[in-house]
Amino acid sequence: MDEKLYTLTDKIDNDLLNGNLAEQEKQNLAQEIKQLLPKDAIALAQINPTSGNVKANALKAYEWIKWAQKLDLDAVVFPEMYLIGYPIGDFIDRFPVVVEENIEWLNALAAKTTGKTKVVMGFVEFNTTKGGKKYFNSIAVLADRKIERIVRKTLLPNYAEFNDYRHFEPAAVDSANRITSIGENKAGIIVCEDGWNDFDFFDKNLYSVDPVETVVKEQHPNYLLNCSSSITRAKKEQLKHNMLSFAAKKHATPIVYVNQVGSNECLSFEGASRVYNKDGNLVAMAKSYKEQFFIVSPTKGGKVYPLPDGLEKTLNSQKAFTLDHEPDLERTYLTIVQTIRDYFKKTGFKRAVLGLSGGLDSTVSAVLLADAIGEQNVFGISMPSKITSAESKNDARELAKNLGINFAEISIKDMYDSTRSKFDEVFSLIENKWNCRYKECFTNDNIQARSRALILWGVANEFQSCLPIATSDKSELYMGYATINGDMSGGFAPLADVSKTKLFALAKWMNKHRTKKNAIPEAIIEKRPGAELAINPKTGKPLLAEEALMPYEFLDEVIWRVENLQQTIGDMMQAEFLHEKHLKEQGEPLSQEQKLEWLKKFFRRMSTALYKWSIMPPSPIVDARSINKAEYKHPIIASGINYHKTTYEQKLNELK
Amino acid sequence: MDEKLYTLTDKIDNDLLNGNLAEQEKQNLAQEIKQLLPKDAIALAQINPTSGNVKANALKAYEWIKWAQKLDLDAVVFPEMYLIGYPIGDFIDRFPVVVEENIEWLNALAAKTTGKTKVVMGFVEFNTTKGGKKYFNSIAVLADRKIERIVRKTLLPNYAEFNDYRHFEPAAVDSANRITSIGENKAGIIVCEDGWNDFDFFDKNLYSVDPVETVVKEQHPNYLLNCSSSITRAKKEQLKHNMLSFAAKKHATPIVYVNQVGSNECLSFEGASRVYNKDGNLVAMAKSYKEQFFIVSPTKGGKVYPLPDGLEKTLNSQKAFTLDHEPDLERTYLTIVQTIRDYFKKTGFKRAVLGLSGGLDSTVSAVLLADAIGEQNVFGISMPSKITSAESKNDARELAKNLGINFAEISIKDMYDSTRSKFDEVFSLIENKWNCRYKECFTNDNIQARSRALILWGVANEFQSCLPIATSDKSELYMGYATINGDMSGGFAPLADVSKTKLFALAKWMNKHRTKKNAIPEAIIEKRPGAELAINPKTGKPLLAEEALMPYEFLDEVIWRVENLQQTIGDMMQAEFLHEKHLKEQGEPLSQEQKLEWLKKFFRRMSTALYKWSIMPPSPIVDARSINKAEYKHPIIASGINYHKTTYEQKLNELK
Repeated sequence: MDEKLYTLTDKIDNDLLNGNLAEQEKQNLAQEIKQLLPKDAIALAQINPTSGNVKANALKAYEWIKWAQKLDLDAVVFPEMYLIGYPIGDFIDRFPVVVEENIEWLNALAAKTTGKTKVVMGFVEFNTTKGGKKYFNSIAVLADRKIERIVRKTLLPNYAEFNDYRHFEPAAVDSANRITSIGENKAGIIVCEDGWNDFDFFDKNLYSVDPVETVVKEQHPNYLLNCSSSITRAKKEQLKHNMLSFAAKKHATPIVYVNQVGSNECLSFEGASRVYNKDGNLVAMAKSYKEQFFIVSPTKGGKVYPLPDGLEKTLNSQKAFTLDHEPDLERTYLTIVQTIRDYFKKTGFKRAVLGLSGGLDSTVSAVLLADAIGEQNVFGISMPSKITSAESKNDARELAKNLGINFAEISIKDMYDSTRSKFDEVFSLIENKWNCRYKECFTNDNIQARSRALILWGVANEFQSCLPIATSDKSELYMGYATINGDMSGGFAPLADVSKTKLFALAKWMNKHRTKKNAIPEAIIEKRPGAELAINPKTGKPLLAEEALMPYEFLDEVIWRVENLQQTIGDMMQAEFLHEKHLKEQGEPLSQEQKLEWLKKFFRRMSTALYKWSIMPPSPIVDARSINKAEYKHPIIASGINYHKTTYEQKLNELK
Repeated sequence: MDEKLYTLTDKIDNDLLNGNLAEQEKQNLAQEIKQLLPKDAIALAQINPTSGNVKANALKAYEWIKWAQKLDLDAVVFPEMYLIGYPIGDFIDRFPVVVEENIEWLNALAAKTTGKTKVVMGFVEFNTTKGGKKYFNSIAVLADRKIERIVRKTLLPNYAEFNDYRHFEPAAVDSANRITSIGENKAGIIVCEDGWNDFDFFDKNLYSVDPVETVVKEQHPNYLLNCSSSITRAKKEQLKHNMLSFAAKKHATPIVYVNQVGSNECLSFEGASRVYNKDGNLVAMAKSYKEQFFIVSPTKGGKVYPLPDGLEKTLNSQKAFTLDHEPDLERTYLTIVQTIRDYFKKTGFKRAVLGLSGGLDSTVSAVLLADAIGEQNVFGISMPSKITSAESKNDARELAKNLGINFAEISIKDMYDSTRSKFDEVFSLIENKWNCRYKECFTNDNIQARSRALILWGVANEFQSCLPIATSDKSELYMGYATINGDMSGGFAPLADVSKTKLFALAKWMNKHRTKKNAIPEAIIEKRPGAELAINPKTGKPLLAEEALMPYEFLDEVIWRVENLQQTIGDMMQAEFLHEKHLKEQGEPLSQEQKLEWLKKFFRRMSTALYKWSIMPPSPIVDARSINKAEYKHPIIASGINYHKTTYEQKLNELK
């Protein structure tokens, strides 16, 4: 379609965001656009709902519907569960009033459907039959002031971040009911996971029916319309693109795919709504990470906006660990920035305060916060203790200056001293009764991290709409290398799903790609990470994280193998790690004993870190798999798992 | 059966717990018991597994199996998923090695089945077919050194604390395969939820088949054997008893029900394994909250041990809020004590440290801890600030003395002062940049709660195997009336599912029923709760919680109505609250305006408390419903839910 169409619809997006057009201007714009429209034009409402805020979602949708009506489009199509706001957690179970409200709002919107423009919208429906779960996950077609039909989801995902089967009853495919006329076309409606069970594409299928196949074979629609709310993850675009393209071609039927955008707490949606033609070619794709009133012809396509840079490179990449995080860095950046922005906006927070240590975690957090909520709304506080080096203080100050965020430096020495002397008093009382005091201990190290958090929470209490930030990263969370009520405490944790080696790459990427180049001082990226809480007696310098743990290059590969390949210690002993390859090249090969020791240490530390995972603040899911509570639960008491398989004979010997 | 049988089997329980019998003593005991056994005796293994610790579970089971073999019993029957340890969270998804291990251990145990004693045991099985979820939730029958058969669960609960459908494929009922001969009987095996879908008993059914009915009608077993892992909750015994009794009578078939005991993190199992005869009468019931090698005749029954005191009174009680918590207090007490004990034991912790404020929450926590892990392992620290009254200090000291726990008193005045002066310094720097400092604020109040937590975490770091305790209760968590990194911070939170009015009742109950009577000073129970963090300017005395919130009698009823009846503000305005009735009786009726204000305040405060729920430490689920993360998730950003329904006309008016 004409490029000009998209220049003009950018003005609609702008109006929907800022409401800056007067009625006459809207009419003029509409007239101009209408001349450029293909015969079967529809709008894909790539929109950002808020979980549970049904009224806000409904009022917002109404603005989009009015634009579609003004343009006389055949339809405007919203994502799955739009009206109630996906994800829903469990609130529809305990507060059915939310579902009642979403039904009434749906009816009110239906009453406003006039002219030829149909509205297709996801919502939650009561299951009024005697049996089964309380609700259906449904799509309504609104037309002629009524609800024309309701299509119910058949395949209910219930793994990782998906919990459909907690609340919804699966429905029969009912292909005839899934067909609605949109303009002169017959569209077949598919609800998200309903489109993800092709028996030829997947080696293993979760479900026994493929609604796409049923609808195509029984009804021969002109195209399929998939209403989705599908989160972004590393590698997912590769799967999604290949699958949708495969299905469109296999069935010789175009697929129109509408996706939610924006973030709701830990889940991020990248938009990138799209159209595949009947040959499986991508013929339209909306912007990523932006709301868009995206006009397409379901049969011919529209503009193809690019995916975040580099992502296309991953489309055929292999399943191997690499330090080349490059292809995923822009997506990672956009996902975290969007998640921070939406979390603050949707919870009503405006400002963030964080400790700036001069280390990598707090540095990257500060940059992301500045980009998400504005540098004037970020306060970085350098809180040196006795151990903090002059370099760290300078690096923190320089970073703040480069970013333009607010900055203060406050020594915590006196807080540390008064807490420490209090501890001495308490501990000497306690050791009269308990003969189990550690000789050497990290208790005093933790005072520093906890004093800093105490200050940050104080600031958050004292200043309006202000959240303190937890800066722990994924590698350190796996190792439990984070202080409870210290650096892992905060109202939000931007980096909890970013591993350390990726953080280094992200810092470099941001220095290169942000408008303001090189905001992060080179010294911060160059220095080896350490918490600066303790002195290493061997070196006399602050203990480095890799001295306390293991090399990050090795650690991050273990995490990657556990999350993506579900490997055991045995499997990993068999495999060659990137770190091993590098050491070998350097002529200092890694011994098998050292490797085994690190692997055992990994699982030992992970087993004692489980409690920390359970009390982490909300954080963006970024990777293909994460330890975010919204996706993965590991009982804390399940710390006795044997990750090192024994043989059957060993087991038999134990039974005597 | 002979009462003596149970006196003798108590010795088996003791041996299984302490391994204190020599082989000859075991043989002698076995001979004695065998003379008392009915012809078709089986043992119900009411046992306490640990999630994920397959080896420990297998070795433990083997001791139980050897006893069953020694007694020449027809069978020994273990609970659902025993071998892998229920609950599993998601670890079988990311760590399939655990499932491989449980299969190998099952085979190793099978290799040890000799003589006539069959072993029936829950485990997790791989689904090796092309389609569906990765696993089955299965029961194995082990006999003659082999796995005789595997029965797969059909009905997969996936609500509240249940997550079966995340990992398991539902299996067809396959009634023929569910039948195994046990001695001279034909037993039909049922897996937990498979027994909870009777179409005549329930008004609404979750599933479309009733495996119990299918098995009985198609196979006519002599009895049904239900292997369960079913947690204890308020009111659940009422439902369970009525349902099992109903089904046994309806099908004229005895039901043998084996339940897990012990706690795994937040989930507690009360045991109380049992037998209903074909007339629906309860003819055997094992102990509650105790491991037991419980011998019964599936057709004739055995000893009926009593349920926790009072529970029977609830069997037919109505669905109404009451301050008479009495019938549920012993169960509540036993559940929390068991959960604390098992959490400490299974995570390797031995000691607990908590702040003793002289208030109700820390007091009840201290008593429960002392009873769970031993008074010598509990350290109560009184940490007075400027605001703390002399009474509070004395009450704390007296409580500690009565309980025999360790006690210290440490003033936090100097910590408070040094933090406060640091805050003054920080805040004056920040307000140069941010013009949004609150005029009046609770920042300084929170210093007290956070300084106390800092000390407790310091103690936990400095002394071996020591956990700090978070004392927040359910009423206050709903209101967000708890300090982050303060009183709501800890390694375990014993009271998070106990409302305030129930806590008062529990305190009185403990004073009456514990071996040591009246350990809790009367003054603590008499005084009105308050955090003693701030002064109420109106009274000049420490602010009371009910002044900051609303009367607990009212608050707790709102919570009860939300959790149990799913009511909205409108519903609750229509209903008469107990507190209203009491006020009316006192001649001071509650105004509708005041009531509406409290209800709005409830939902407003609850909406801003959601973050706090998400970072709560592990805590026991006690009530019929809870806000424990293991059961209920409410996205933090879903804070804009409208709990006060609007009309359709109001909605239509908003769309213009």
